[in-house]
Amino acid sequence: MISETYKQMLSGKSVIRELSEYATARAKEIGADNVFDFSLGNPSVPVPAAYNETLVRLIRTGDPMLVHGYSPSLGIPAVREAIAASLNRRFGIPYTAADIFMTSGAAGALAHALRLVTAPGDEVLTFAPYFPEYTPYVNLTGAKLRVVPPRFADFQIDFDALDAMLTPGVHAVLVNTPNNPSGAVYAAETLHQLADMLRAKERAFGHEIWLISDEPYREIVFDGVQAPYVSAFYPRTLSCYSFSKSLSLPGDRIGYVAVNPESGVSAMLATMCGQISRGIGHNCPGALMQLAVAQCCDMTADLSVYETNMNLLYDGLTALGFEIVRPGGTFYMFPRALEADAAAFSRKALKYDLVLVPGDSFGAPGHVRIAYCVDTAKVVRSLEAFARFVRAEY
Amino acid sequence: MISETYKQMLSGKSVIRELSEYATARAKEIGADNVFDFSLGNPSVPVPAAYNETLVRLIRTGDPMLVHGYSPSLGIPAVREAIAASLNRRFGIPYTAADIFMTSGAAGALAHALRLVTAPGDEVLTFAPYFPEYTPYVNLTGAKLRVVPPRFADFQIDFDALDAMLTPGVHAVLVNTPNNPSGAVYAAETLHQLADMLRAKERAFGHEIWLISDEPYREIVFDGVQAPYVSAFYPRTLSCYSFSKSLSLPGDRIGYVAVNPESGVSAMLATMCGQISRGIGHNCPGALMQLAVAQCCDMTADLSVYETNMNLLYDGLTALGFEIVRPGGTFYMFPRALEADAAAFSRKALKYDLVLVPGDSFGAPGHVRIAYCVDTAKVVRSLEAFARFVRAEY
Repeated sequence: MISETYKQMLSGKSVIRELSEYATARAKEIGADNVFDFSLGNPSVPVPAAYNETLVRLIRTGDPMLVHGYSPSLGIPAVREAIAASLNRRFGIPYTAADIFMTSGAAGALAHALRLVTAPGDEVLTFAPYFPEYTPYVNLTGAKLRVVPPRFADFQIDFDALDAMLTPGVHAVLVNTPNNPSGAVYAAETLHQLADMLRAKERAFGHEIWLISDEPYREIVFDGVQAPYVSAFYPRTLSCYSFSKSLSLPGDRIGYVAVNPESGVSAMLATMCGQISRGIGHNCPGALMQLAVAQCCDMTADLSVYETNMNLLYDGLTALGFEIVRPGGTFYMFPRALEADAAAFSRKALKYDLVLVPGDSFGAPGHVRIAYCVDTAKVVRSLEAFARFVRAEY
Repeated sequence: MISETYKQMLSGKSVIRELSEYATARAKEIGADNVFDFSLGNPSVPVPAAYNETLVRLIRTGDPMLVHGYSPSLGIPAVREAIAASLNRRFGIPYTAADIFMTSGAAGALAHALRLVTAPGDEVLTFAPYFPEYTPYVNLTGAKLRVVPPRFADFQIDFDALDAMLTPGVHAVLVNTPNNPSGAVYAAETLHQLADMLRAKERAFGHEIWLISDEPYREIVFDGVQAPYVSAFYPRTLSCYSFSKSLSLPGDRIGYVAVNPESGVSAMLATMCGQISRGIGHNCPGALMQLAVAQCCDMTADLSVYETNMNLLYDGLTALGFEIVRPGGTFYMFPRALEADAAAFSRKALKYDLVLVPGDSFGAPGHVRIAYCVDTAKVVRSLEAFARFVRAEY
């Protein structure tokens, strides 16, 4: 019979999708240039030419049985090795190919990581503001997502709140730094303190607590600062990565899980991912994309537009009186709305063709998300619309 | 904590994989030409040049935001439309884009189809001989796979056995025609009788029974005969397709679920697939591959080698005294072993560097699977090895 679980999910509405659809419809009325659509987190810069040339070279000159053939379910060995070596060089963790499991993007990586270290009924903690898709990602495994309230001052971790919620039923903690929707980057101090608390709770509870790090924005960081690498702070870390944002190719569906070898069980966990795949229909990501990212994993698209846009918006909006935690990375910022009800604020903004997503679905009421993965010229023009909006309404 | 479910699966051994690993190791000793590796069902013919040229054209001249951008979670609308139109033309079922859900291959398609129409605890029936991966595919959803014994005479359906096993707990029936491992193609008469029995049981039980049709071998058929299209016989059919075999690109991970519109709920079910994706980390298949198969979905690789190989093996092996149901398609055949214990038979065959998979894991003891997706020259030479094997051992 038709599944009631998934049928009932159809009636759930995604605020982001609704706003995006509104923006698309509005663009047909007044032209896309005149709609300041900040609703969707889609990379706005092209894929590097070198990546496309790598694809073409593989297609034209590669062995078709390799380029179009089944990859092993854990990923192509040489690709896993290239990624381990790249992570080694950049973050100083002695990964080997055995610790890497290739996935269809970060969604595929999280689907495996969650099943690796939780059983149905277990609790998973994450921190607001958080990516709303974490709710189905976690809850449809049978585990249960609980959300630690935000520390609004800087969107680092509220450790008192975490301490209260980190009860014996929690078997995994899910972090996302650089963060969607706030743009916050966890400081080394935050990660040290988190790791210390996890170790203390492990001792107190007598069971392991795994740290799942969702880090698709790892390479989009500002002010020349590198984001602290989460896995370096805690050995039982599963790093979930996607090349979607760094190489600007979300449609290519390519990422990985990297299990910290200091956990002592990294090769076993990577191998277990292959078993998990059998139940969720994953098999392996595209062989062509695996081979291409292996050659391009130290490269990024030209990500500078995001920092340009961030600075323009941050300066322009703070001058208009907005309170904003200055993003350290991503292509999001998360200002406080100018009234308590962010949904009402967002609706009023639509009158000025400013499409902002209320923070309620991210677990942080009173704020709105601005996804500034758009042309800089549009960002500049949007500031005029913001000025008219604020003057007229507040 | 680390999942016991997936940890325990690590100790399960895949006979196919073990034999394949043996064959690879043996090839290093005596040369690949001298090992008759019939263990793996990997397409052995190259992808069509036109497909590769389509990929290159899309990469070189396509809009990078489309070619490398997120596809909607149900698939790119124009791609879904192209596939619906192609199925219409070929099988006369009035699919529209709304009935098609794009997936990462047949594994992705089955992962969605099973979750669409079963709940944990429900039973799913399939027919031996069957693809062993069906066990984790079904059981890891929480449903339970039960296997109807084979009808050895022709590998069509044993309807008495089905009648006995089709109890009220069954909510889905999973068929695979053309069949892995037997190569059998279900006759129209078989499918009529199956549909009649499903309808009768639906009335008797007062609930729907869905037919899930796994059909990656649909285009690999022999003697100029088209395989009857399963969905044409029963309205509540979910057709799960992969281009892996027809276009010879298993590494590209591209397929779909097509829901029969006569079910009356096809658009709803396709939309529900998008919800299922959120829980299993699927999102969508690669945008590039979607766009390419939309242009190539009426095309196949040169599949003629499989029929050539089938005829050589069927004639050669029957002349040696083997009993074989003549395959109607695929690149498999499933002869009766020359002793009751197929595993013992398979072990003896290894002495002649013939790598055959015992049928026990396919639910059909006393038989072996021969995957003849290999060079024809090797098939010819293998017949000499078969002759030596049979003369010496039986």
